[in-house]
Amino acid sequence: MSGTSADGIDAALVQIAPGKPLPRLRLLHFRQTPFAAERRAEILACAGPPEGTVDRVCRLNAWLGEAFAEAALGCLREAGVSPQEVTLVGSHGQTLHHQPPGPGPAAPPATLQVGSPALIAERTGITTVADFRPRDMAAGGEGAPLTPIFHAALFRVPGRARVVLNLGGIANLTYLPEGAGTEGVLAFDIGPGNVLLDALAARVSGGAETCDRDGALAGRGRIAPTLLARLLLHPFLRRRPPKSTGRETFGPAFLEEILAWQEARGVTPPDLAATLTALTARAAFDAVTTFLPPGAADLLLCGGGAQNPALVKALAEACPTLRCLMTDEAGFPARAVEAAAFALLAYLTATGHPGNIPAVTGARAPVILGSITPGRTLPRLPLPEA
Amino acid sequence: MSGTSADGIDAALVQIAPGKPLPRLRLLHFRQTPFAAERRAEILACAGPPEGTVDRVCRLNAWLGEAFAEAALGCLREAGVSPQEVTLVGSHGQTLHHQPPGPGPAAPPATLQVGSPALIAERTGITTVADFRPRDMAAGGEGAPLTPIFHAALFRVPGRARVVLNLGGIANLTYLPEGAGTEGVLAFDIGPGNVLLDALAARVSGGAETCDRDGALAGRGRIAPTLLARLLLHPFLRRRPPKSTGRETFGPAFLEEILAWQEARGVTPPDLAATLTALTARAAFDAVTTFLPPGAADLLLCGGGAQNPALVKALAEACPTLRCLMTDEAGFPARAVEAAAFALLAYLTATGHPGNIPAVTGARAPVILGSITPGRTLPRLPLPEA
Repeated sequence: MSGTSADGIDAALVQIAPGKPLPRLRLLHFRQTPFAAERRAEILACAGPPEGTVDRVCRLNAWLGEAFAEAALGCLREAGVSPQEVTLVGSHGQTLHHQPPGPGPAAPPATLQVGSPALIAERTGITTVADFRPRDMAAGGEGAPLTPIFHAALFRVPGRARVVLNLGGIANLTYLPEGAGTEGVLAFDIGPGNVLLDALAARVSGGAETCDRDGALAGRGRIAPTLLARLLLHPFLRRRPPKSTGRETFGPAFLEEILAWQEARGVTPPDLAATLTALTARAAFDAVTTFLPPGAADLLLCGGGAQNPALVKALAEACPTLRCLMTDEAGFPARAVEAAAFALLAYLTATGHPGNIPAVTGARAPVILGSITPGRTLPRLPLPEA
Repeated sequence: MSGTSADGIDAALVQIAPGKPLPRLRLLHFRQTPFAAERRAEILACAGPPEGTVDRVCRLNAWLGEAFAEAALGCLREAGVSPQEVTLVGSHGQTLHHQPPGPGPAAPPATLQVGSPALIAERTGITTVADFRPRDMAAGGEGAPLTPIFHAALFRVPGRARVVLNLGGIANLTYLPEGAGTEGVLAFDIGPGNVLLDALAARVSGGAETCDRDGALAGRGRIAPTLLARLLLHPFLRRRPPKSTGRETFGPAFLEEILAWQEARGVTPPDLAATLTALTARAAFDAVTTFLPPGAADLLLCGGGAQNPALVKALAEACPTLRCLMTDEAGFPARAVEAAAFALLAYLTATGHPGNIPAVTGARAPVILGSITPGRTLPRLPLPEA
């Protein structure tokens, strides 16, 4: 997969075994492949009008298909596993557009992930499951988040309620009440994860940096309280879940808007970075206290932002009632969580099982997600009882 | 399916039974649903820059998914068949962009068909096979034409070589040597079918007409010989197969170019219509005599242009050595051929069989085409022996 930050491809090699109520997973290998600067620029250009035209999107779809295939094969090479030993590829693709169902009829719900599954299947020879989001939206859902079923499979435990916080471009949270399976699981996007910080780092460095590496910028700054207060009034943060968002709402354009605010006057780049870091941390805590049942004990961090010490520190400070830890400490490496989730979703689809959680996405019903693009042959997998 | 003319949706209900060397097919019902003028305009706008932007394409993808689902359900209602009785939907979708592999590395091969299969599968509950073209292109092919395997299944006979001519927006030809199966079958796009005539009819009528209905315009005109001679020099017509083309080459923009030619001076709209009609007929005959083995006996006509008496007459005149007849006379209704072909392709994919003919598309190998989007459940179909 590649996330909304479009900084590169994450590939996870996962062993999956049937299990009740959910399959069991083990990470065999993980590999990150950064995009070259011009490729990242092309992805971001294709993500909206006027630059994102059908011909460019179409070429990007083909180029990303090749790149995803190479990332998968590279991951297998490093792991010493041959493609013939692999049953399925699960490919999230690269989101270029995500318009969840709105309150009004203005814009119909629509979502687009690119990275040609036909190219992945042809280059790897492996049956490829992709395009997971459109089906949940067709069933009335937000099409996101889809990783909660993976969080439930990996991190849900008896006797202890947990929150998983994925710090991608957009940050999303999964609530796992004590127990097992998907019953009672809640999840939603909480707002900006790294996306505003990334945009700020790029702006400050004249494009040389794509993120606030190691939280260096934020680490030198101090929170601007009136600016933070205004940011926390953003209507998305207040909206009741289910809800999802994207770069359309919290992207570089929103950063430019912020910079023009009265409250941003005289705020230095390090102070702004500290404030945006605190925004994510406070949005997470507010979401936990406002929208979740009380009593969650652990806050498990994953995603790119979990590598940012300034953000992790801000979270620990903002969430004093929760024990903050990396998902690594709960049994699965933080940076591999998002990619591995799509391996589980691919397995569920190919074996005829729904992958969405209606209480999470707002869909009318559990549905089998995605499309199956055959590899050299169609894999023979156990289907659910008729 | 909806073709490059974007005039509406063709839905065919087909019964398929296993057979050697190819499955056997029977048409149960056929239904056409024209697009409203503003929808057609939106499809054509989305087919290229600058209007075809990612957000509009994404919305169109969702709208067309709903429209294809309604067309399929409408076809079933008329036929008195419930969706639960149907195993598969095969959806070609609407092509918005098609860039086959070129001689140079300038533009990478890429193709885009829209009409969300997730929406079709969700609304009908039927497993939907779609996106047939990208896989053939991933294997080095043109991604077109894909209907020849259907032509072979339906119209190939012992003792008599035949040519099937599909008169869509772009016209394509399939050569069926005497015998059975796909061995020896040739096929390629021959050039413009109805696309230039459609553009002319729209231009002359100020947008009121979408095609030269019943060949009325051409019927009143006379061929302009010097203009026809120049048109016949178009490099695409001379190129050796495998080859495919689209609206990018033979679209309204090309008509505007023609109108500016020296040879088009003083040519009235009816004369131009007669000349464009003759162009398709002559291009077909030249293709048969230049690129096919000698001895073909029948020219079987199908596609929208087969409903145009002026074009049928022009073909009979241009191809004196061939017996011209509608595919109806060879056992399958002409107007249902294109749509029904994608039912066969869906069946081949879902049962693990390749659908392309490498000698036809230029692909390196036979490949299983398309992506399978599960309906309520995954259908249990016989897979090929391992």
